[in-house]
Amino acid sequence: MLKKSFLSASVALATLASSAAFAVEHIDLLIKDATVLTMNADKAVYENGVVAVSGNKIVAVGDESLSEAYQAKTVLDVDGDIVMPGLINTHTHASMTVFRSLGDDVPDRLHRYIFPLESQLVSRDMVRIGAQLGNVEMLKGGVTTYADMYYFEDEVAKTVDKIGMRAILGETVIRFPVADAANAEEGIQYALNFIKEYKDHPRITPAFAPHAPYTNTTEVLQKITKLSLEHDVPVMIHLAESERENEVIAERSGGKSPVEYMADIGALTPNLVGAHVINVDEHDIALLKKHDVGIAHNMSANIKSAKGVSPALKMFDDGLRIGLGTDGPMSGNTLSTVDEFNQVAKVHKLVNKDRAAMPPIKVIEMATMGAARALHMEDKIGSLETGKLADIIVIDTKAPNMVPMYNPYSALVYSAYASNVKHAIVDGQLLMQERDILTVDEDKVRQEALQFADKVRETVIASGEEVR
Amino acid sequence: MLKKSFLSASVALATLASSAAFAVEHIDLLIKDATVLTMNADKAVYENGVVAVSGNKIVAVGDESLSEAYQAKTVLDVDGDIVMPGLINTHTHASMTVFRSLGDDVPDRLHRYIFPLESQLVSRDMVRIGAQLGNVEMLKGGVTTYADMYYFEDEVAKTVDKIGMRAILGETVIRFPVADAANAEEGIQYALNFIKEYKDHPRITPAFAPHAPYTNTTEVLQKITKLSLEHDVPVMIHLAESERENEVIAERSGGKSPVEYMADIGALTPNLVGAHVINVDEHDIALLKKHDVGIAHNMSANIKSAKGVSPALKMFDDGLRIGLGTDGPMSGNTLSTVDEFNQVAKVHKLVNKDRAAMPPIKVIEMATMGAARALHMEDKIGSLETGKLADIIVIDTKAPNMVPMYNPYSALVYSAYASNVKHAIVDGQLLMQERDILTVDEDKVRQEALQFADKVRETVIASGEEVR
Ligand SMILES: [Zn+2]
Ligand SMILES: [Zn+2]
Repeated sequence: MLKKSFLSASVALATLASSAAFAVEHIDLLIKDATVLTMNADKAVYENGVVAVSGNKIVAVGDESLSEAYQAKTVLDVDGDIVMPGLINTHTHASMTVFRSLGDDVPDRLHRYIFPLESQLVSRDMVRIGAQLGNVEMLKGGVTTYADMYYFEDEVAKTVDKIGMRAILGETVIRFPVADAANAEEGIQYALNFIKEYKDHPRITPAFAPHAPYTNTTEVLQKITKLSLEHDVPVMIHLAESERENEVIAERSGGKSPVEYMADIGALTPNLVGAHVINVDEHDIALLKKHDVGIAHNMSANIKSAKGVSPALKMFDDGLRIGLGTDGPMSGNTLSTVDEFNQVAKVHKLVNKDRAAMPPIKVIEMATMGAARALHMEDKIGSLETGKLADIIVIDTKAPNMVPMYNPYSALVYSAYASNVKHAIVDGQLLMQERDILTVDEDKVRQEALQFADKVRETVIASGEEVR
Repeated sequence: MLKKSFLSASVALATLASSAAFAVEHIDLLIKDATVLTMNADKAVYENGVVAVSGNKIVAVGDESLSEAYQAKTVLDVDGDIVMPGLINTHTHASMTVFRSLGDDVPDRLHRYIFPLESQLVSRDMVRIGAQLGNVEMLKGGVTTYADMYYFEDEVAKTVDKIGMRAILGETVIRFPVADAANAEEGIQYALNFIKEYKDHPRITPAFAPHAPYTNTTEVLQKITKLSLEHDVPVMIHLAESERENEVIAERSGGKSPVEYMADIGALTPNLVGAHVINVDEHDIALLKKHDVGIAHNMSANIKSAKGVSPALKMFDDGLRIGLGTDGPMSGNTLSTVDEFNQVAKVHKLVNKDRAAMPPIKVIEMATMGAARALHMEDKIGSLETGKLADIIVIDTKAPNMVPMYNPYSALVYSAYASNVKHAIVDGQLLMQERDILTVDEDKVRQEALQFADKVRETVIASGEEVR
């Protein structure tokens, strides 16, 4: 399997063995007997591999003999299971778990169903309860970092802090009144306060999240761009997603595409992460590349809403910063990017009429390093390499759907369930062990969500809509 | 939720309550506190529902007060979880689990990779070992009945008998030499012996499985048709699947489509189950309907191989007998139709450019009653109704991906993993409890598969191919 990787493995081994001759190093965690997918530049794979962690960092990755160089407080023998970088979900709305699956197939759902529902139900409580559940679902599905766009993001931040995950949290700015802001300007102020509060958090990156180009004015988009550069924080936005967006922007800009319009008003910057990016042509793609914009590819949500298939494969091959996302639980409807893998692989094959298009290794890259690049975090996360943050997951390879395993990338993409994720480590801390989350009470999280769901049901019925 | 269903529920309740006044009936199993999806003609759903089982039959399905009418040896309180008909996988090749994911993206894979591999490795042992693993995977994914096409089907039958599942097992007939037959005629004889041996098995239906129209002669296809009617057994075939098939059949028949050709030679009968059925037009669909042919829709395999999307939604809406299948583990690559649900829903939305196309309830019908109809078993399985065989599964609704649940069909289609299946009952017997299979040793099944996989790896390498 993967001969080239074994060559690089041997090189790494030789280097490390010589340093090991000196003395045994004391570290916190040693993962051994692993099928390690490093997702480094060479895509090195180590059978019988080892990952060494000290504090919140990876200090070494290599072959089995590497384990002799370390004395670890905790040794995790994973018996051949896959060890890989934690998954990075580049786009979601975690708090919306409490609305999951409501009105799934309603036409013009965002404007006719979701916005009215949110106007009645979004609150600090809702955001906290929904995010708690979303966090649990994501961590159990191997997501260690996620990028969120919603309201009351300071409440989301508290839940992320508690469970121990990593996140970029974008406070929504939108032109109409919402639960935490009467208008876009108040949304910007809310975001600025949130940014101030969380700017130095070790695992949380606060951000702006203008909802979309067509739901904000040019002035607001420009102000956010300016502030994001001043404060050096990300801007997350839904971009080139819908027909309605195309129409509104074309009218506003004299026939421009959403991406052209954003370029024209100076809103394409390396701080920007655009979600969906379906309706783009060659010129738009070139603009996104030129401005070093990150892209979140949400296959499951895009086909479920019949919006179409983003040219994500072309953007990946053209070297754009692109990674997988799930979108929110009213869209996807689940929150682990493992659930995206096989859809991403297969639907790109279908639309390209080529079974060799979008091979598994590209999908896994888009779930790890690609996603890290999309969020401009590739120096910190996305691969298992010395010096990177220790965000690591272990995938059970004994479940019947994973047996046998001739190629770990294929097994992950075509066969794995999110529920095959066994352990999850974030920032060097074991957060999930044998599928038990160690930092929050999963039962309590579910109970709170179920209670809130009763309220949702009553509200929908009282509004004369169907619970469907 | 689903007001109409509650009306039918009340009616059922009233009827049963009056009979309950007479005496308490002694039965084997009572499932209670369930969200029961009956999948009967009215699509009745019972919250706090009950299913009563005596021997291998369902004796009642209804509301909670129904439980007073019965005294059961075993009471299964499922605490609100979904209880539904066992899933029916209308098309697979279970034994191929030992080859899962080999050469996934190789062009012309069937002829260039799979057939050569099989010529070296198919044996009684391989068929048994692969089927064992496939059975375990399917049962853990909620499949209680499956339709199989492969070699040495008498070996598959032994594994099905042992684990306790239900199956239609089709012995392959193909024009070139294979492991258990030197030619098609020997294949037919093998099938006849197998049919004789298993004709009266309570859970196993033996069948003919001519590989495809283009890999068999007209004479062989006609002979099998005649024999299948004489012996009253199914015929399973890959139909209207590939470009190569179109070409070969067009040349053979003077420009006919595979379905037209099959109609012309008299091979379309109610005993036939066609898998894939991608390349069909209105006329072909009308022919399939006229001859009451069953159809296996394998979305995941079809898009992974970039073969295209079957007009399954149209065939379903036109009233054809159509149900979901997974195809084999080299194609799909997993064996639970739960894994098909969201792909079926979403890809039909995508190709129809309509988010309301293929709503969840249709997907679940195609996984249960539709699949039963495709296999002409709708009088025995596919719904939870009095008098039907007790093939029942329970789905965990407490997993974070299933919380909250506003509509059980949506939750199943857009959120469920195969691993959310908690219990499985076939023919009245509890075969899986809390995900533990009670009738076979899962560890041993995995070990045998892993040992065989080593042999596969060696064989591929020795043949000069890559293990990829
Ligand atoms: Zn979104
Ligand atoms: Zn097949």
